[in-house]
Parts: sequence; C-alpha cells; structure tokens
Amino acid sequence: MTYERDAIARMSGYTPGEQPTRTVIAKLNTNENPYPPCTAVMDALRGIDAHALRRYPSAMADGFRAEAARLHGVTPEHVIATNGGDELLRLAITTFLEPGGPMGIAEPGYSLYPVLAALNESPLVPVPLADDWSLPVGIAERWNEAGARLAMLVNPHAPSGRLSPPAEIFEIARAFRGVLLLDEAYVDFIDPARGYDSIPLVRELPNVLLLRTMSKGYSLAGLRFAYGIGAPALVAPMLTKSKDSYNVDAVAQTLATASLRHRDEAAKTWEAVRVERDRVRAALAQRGFAAPESETNFLLASVPGGDGRAVYRALADAGIFVRWFDQDRLRDRLRISIGTPEENDALLAALDAME
Amino acid sequence: MTYERDAIARMSGYTPGEQPTRTVIAKLNTNENPYPPCTAVMDALRGIDAHALRRYPSAMADGFRAEAARLHGVTPEHVIATNGGDELLRLAITTFLEPGGPMGIAEPGYSLYPVLAALNESPLVPVPLADDWSLPVGIAERWNEAGARLAMLVNPHAPSGRLSPPAEIFEIARAFRGVLLLDEAYVDFIDPARGYDSIPLVRELPNVLLLRTMSKGYSLAGLRFAYGIGAPALVAPMLTKSKDSYNVDAVAQTLATASLRHRDEAAKTWEAVRVERDRVRAALAQRGFAAPESETNFLLASVPGGDGRAVYRALADAGIFVRWFDQDRLRDRLRISIGTPEENDALLAALDAME
Repeated sequence: MTYERDAIARMSGYTPGEQPTRTVIAKLNTNENPYPPCTAVMDALRGIDAHALRRYPSAMADGFRAEAARLHGVTPEHVIATNGGDELLRLAITTFLEPGGPMGIAEPGYSLYPVLAALNESPLVPVPLADDWSLPVGIAERWNEAGARLAMLVNPHAPSGRLSPPAEIFEIARAFRGVLLLDEAYVDFIDPARGYDSIPLVRELPNVLLLRTMSKGYSLAGLRFAYGIGAPALVAPMLTKSKDSYNVDAVAQTLATASLRHRDEAAKTWEAVRVERDRVRAALAQRGFAAPESETNFLLASVPGGDGRAVYRALADAGIFVRWFDQDRLRDRLRISIGTPEENDALLAALDAME
Repeated sequence: MTYERDAIARMSGYTPGEQPTRTVIAKLNTNENPYPPCTAVMDALRGIDAHALRRYPSAMADGFRAEAARLHGVTPEHVIATNGGDELLRLAITTFLEPGGPMGIAEPGYSLYPVLAALNESPLVPVPLADDWSLPVGIAERWNEAGARLAMLVNPHAPSGRLSPPAEIFEIARAFRGVLLLDEAYVDFIDPARGYDSIPLVRELPNVLLLRTMSKGYSLAGLRFAYGIGAPALVAPMLTKSKDSYNVDAVAQTLATASLRHRDEAAKTWEAVRVERDRVRAALAQRGFAAPESETNFLLASVPGGDGRAVYRALADAGIFVRWFDQDRLRDRLRISIGTPEENDALLAALDAME
C-alpha cells in the first residue's frame, strides 16, 4: 500500500546538479560564484551569538526587507524573503495558481519549473523560444488563451545566458492576465554598461514579481536565501498567509543583510566573472565550442559533432564537471559555469587534451 | 484586481507568538529553551568556512540523516531533514493529501494545523479531546468515516503538556487508514522515568511519521531545523519529490549534526527545565493557577476568575510575556513557557503583585 497521492506517485522529482564524489579539478556545473563571500559577511557569521540561535528569528525578516528596500528604492512591503529562490517559485504557485490550473513557461528554461507545476497538478503551457533564445512574439497571448494565471520566465535566460531587455518583459507582463514571475537569479552578472533595470516593472505593473537570490552573485548558495520584489498587493498574501511562519533563519537573515550592505565587495567578483566570461567564450569559440553572448556566470557551448553527453563524460573523467541536459535543443550543448582563471584554464586544457 | 486564488483570499494566516517591542523582563510566550546551545555547537558555527557558504549544501542533508539514524536506531532512509517543523507539516499535506481532501486533527491542538489545511483547501475533521486533554476513544474511526488520508496529533500535547503513551498512539495509527503525523516537538522534555519511546511505531507501522525539532530541546529555534522519522516508503516521496531541492542550509545542517553528537549537553538543560517545571507548577497552584501535569517546557495554567486575557495583558504590562489563545476551552487559561529560575521568579512576583 502506498500513501502518497496519485500526482506525486506519477511525477518525477528535480535532479539537482551532481555533487561529484570523484576527484574534482574544476566544478563548473552548478553556477556557484567561484569567489567566497566577503570578509564582512564572514565577520557577521562569527559574530552571531548563542541567543540569536536560541530564539525564533524575525518571522518576516524585517531587517533584511528594510535593507533590500533601500537598495532597490522600494518599500519593505514590496519585498519578501524566502528560503532560496525555490521557495519563492513554490509560493507563487501556491498563492496564485489553483490546483490543476495551467502555468505558462518558455522552453527551454529552468528545469525546476515543470517539477513545481507537477506538484500542483498544473499542466504546462510551454512556448518555445526563438532560435536565438529570444522571447517569441505573442507569448503572453498564448498563455492567456490557455487560461494561465501564473507564468515563469528566467532573465537573463538559463541555460543560454541571453538577456532580454526590460521593455520586452514589460510588454509581455502588460499583455498577460496572470502573475508574471521574472526569475532574475543571474541579474548580478549583467554588464552594467547594458543599463538593465527591472525595478520600474514592479512600480508600474501590478502583476510582476521579481526573484533575486543571494546564492549566485553573493556567493551564498549554502545559506538558502532569496527574495521577491513586487507590488505590495502581490507580496502580502505570500508574506502573511502562504509562506511557512518562520521561513528564513536568523543566521541567513544576518548574513544576507550584511551582504547587501557590502554589495560593492560582491560586485568586484561580478566584474572578475565578466572578464573571465569574455576570455573563456573566445577560447571556447577557437576550439569550435561556440556559445551565445551571456550576461550570466555561465556559457551554453555547442559541442562540435553534436554529442554533448560524450564530451560531458570525458570532461568528468578528467575531473572537470559541467552540466549536460537530456532535453530537446540542449543535447548538443554543455552549460559551463565560469570559474576562477585557474579552473577555466583547466577546462580549456582538458578540451585540448581530448582532441 | 487581485491575483491570489480565492482560497488564499478567504483564509487567515498563522499568528506567530508576539515578539515584544516593549520592555521584556521574561519572555515566556514561544516555548524556546531558556538555555543557549552548547559550546560545541557554537564552535561548529565559528568553524564554518567561506566555501561552505559559497557552494550548494547537501540536497538531502546526508550527514545529518546518518547521525539521526544512529541516534534513533533506524536507517538514513527513515529520516528527512526539514526547514523547521512547519516544513514537515506542509510536506505531509502536499504529499499525502489531495487538494481539498479532509484532514484529521484533535482539538485543541497546534494552531498552525488549520492554517496549513486551509492552504490546501482541506476541510478539517476535528475531534475534541476529553476534559483531561486525553485522546478520545474512536478518534481514528471518526477520521476514517470522514475520509481523511492524513491526520496530525501533537504529543506531548500542546497547549496542555499532557503525554499520551505510545500504546495509545499505536492503536490509533493502526486503526487509521491514512498517514498519522505525530508532532513530537516537545519530546525532549519528557521525564526519562516515563520511559517514552515512539521509535517502535515507525518500525512496526507503515503510516506513522514522527516530527522532531531542534528548535526547542536543542535551543536552535533561530536556525529552522527539524526532521521526520518514518517508514522509508513514507519518507521517500517527500525526500525526492515534494520538498524544495535544497531545503536546509549548510550552516543549519552542520549545527544540527553537532547538536545530536553533543546531545548530553542539551539533556542537562532538559533536566534543568523539568526541575523548574515542577517548582513553577507548585508555585502557580498555590496562587490558584492550577495546571495539569506537563511533559513539555510549558504549563497550561487556569486563571482564577477565568479572564485569561486580562491576566495576560496585566503580565505584559509588567514585562512578562505569556501566551493567551482566543479559542474555545482556552480563554480562561495561559500557556506559560518554563524560563530560567530568575525569569520564573519574575513571573511569580508579577502574579503576587497583581493580587
């Protein structure tokens, strides 16, 4: 006899990126920032006292929300803190989507979205991206026709790294009748020269929810801390009803707040990643592994000959871990996180050794 | 225009215990352990390195699960780690209860259960406890008749502190056709002389899920770490499908593991709480505030005259924070956490000053 409900029994779970148990020369498969969090954040960790552990944390992460509001020029009522970005994605479904209600996505995208939809018994309304990974015209209308009340887009896009301009997102959100969750997990790595700014979307539209995370840009994947920014009427039901009552812990709140205060330190790592991103992209292209321009901390490289899995395996045997997706339009590619210069050199050397 | 679904708009959220902003002489309202976590746990915190923050944590908390399995004499497959007990309660609903499917509870109980049920649009099947807060005969049959596929009981009971013996729980679980989640948040404070052991329930029955938390006994409410113990077939779908992919952070995993390893240190605080529990209960009874015998770190005291709210307010004005519930059978009572001897003395002095 099984006790789980049918939808759970039928579905497949999410497969997190491999945590290699073999010898690791370079771990370039889960898009972590290759540089550690700054000294001020480590000092904040050492400064946590026993009573901060003993007592319940702030239920709504008030200190963090005030800090994030200052940074983004919004009010704390625009902000919700979550136990990693996954929690915000799940909360959006719980809050805005009826059980079984259809959910809009673009394909390909973050492979967790379909898993979360399956938990809610929500059929997907997938709209294929154009050949250059750009958002197709009419995507909001496709979602509307299917009756979707929630849609998720990742920008800059994963796994291609492509950035869509806010004006395009604005038009999609304005045309869409449900809530548009814009997953900006990689926003910190965008070249500042691009002038990307999505905050006006939440000021001007009632249905846009931005996802920001401390996992990538702020080197805190181990901590599980992300946040949403949206109109207060969108944020309130998640904050007061659907999130777990104490969803983010006291240590994470303290370190995330310190991270925003010392954002300039993290920004130095973003610049270092961008410099390496350009160098690695050019070096990969020389070797036949062309990748589209990326505004993230990874590259989606085409594999000469098209057998992505074989190259993925050969690299793993050499201690270089990258990500291969067994998925349409992606089987002939590898997603490669940008590491330290040494790690990136090791990747290039391993590719050279394979030829 | 609102975007949240109807069930969310209709429901009320959970009200966490007050985090007082006034002068606090004694905070006895949220059942935290009055003593800090042990030195070894604080050392583990100081020892966390920057790369443990930078990298994703173990997705399934493998190290912690191995440690918990050793402690309880089960296998790691019997254990799931969660972001506080709230997450395990929510996961049980997501995993075992269809949207809208009825859920069994006993009344009164933990006030979060109805909130989580409302999120799932699940009607409650509430069965009233007997006058002495014991579990009524036929409770499983009542749940079965209503078609409940999941039920939640808290033992020792909150807010009365009463302990039901495992044999009673065993009979209920055996008669119940769904999953019985036994919330043992306060299990660490049970007098060892009572010989309470619920682990045989999960070894012998396929449908019992125990909830343990590090928040109370281990003085880690700030960290958000709990765990479930159940038959592997019950645990597996939560572990691999319904939980968020990285649900517990690296810091919490490290400190929770250290806590179990140094359980003897925490056990000294449990004994100190028991000594004070007996003293405070007798002292309250002398003042007319009778409380049933408790195997937790709180007492449910009757208020002479019956106006619990008035005494709650008078105590708060004196800087003593306790919990009052605006709920049937509880309005004439106060739930009072056991504090340090000094905090408990302050409570008793404040009651004396009111007379």
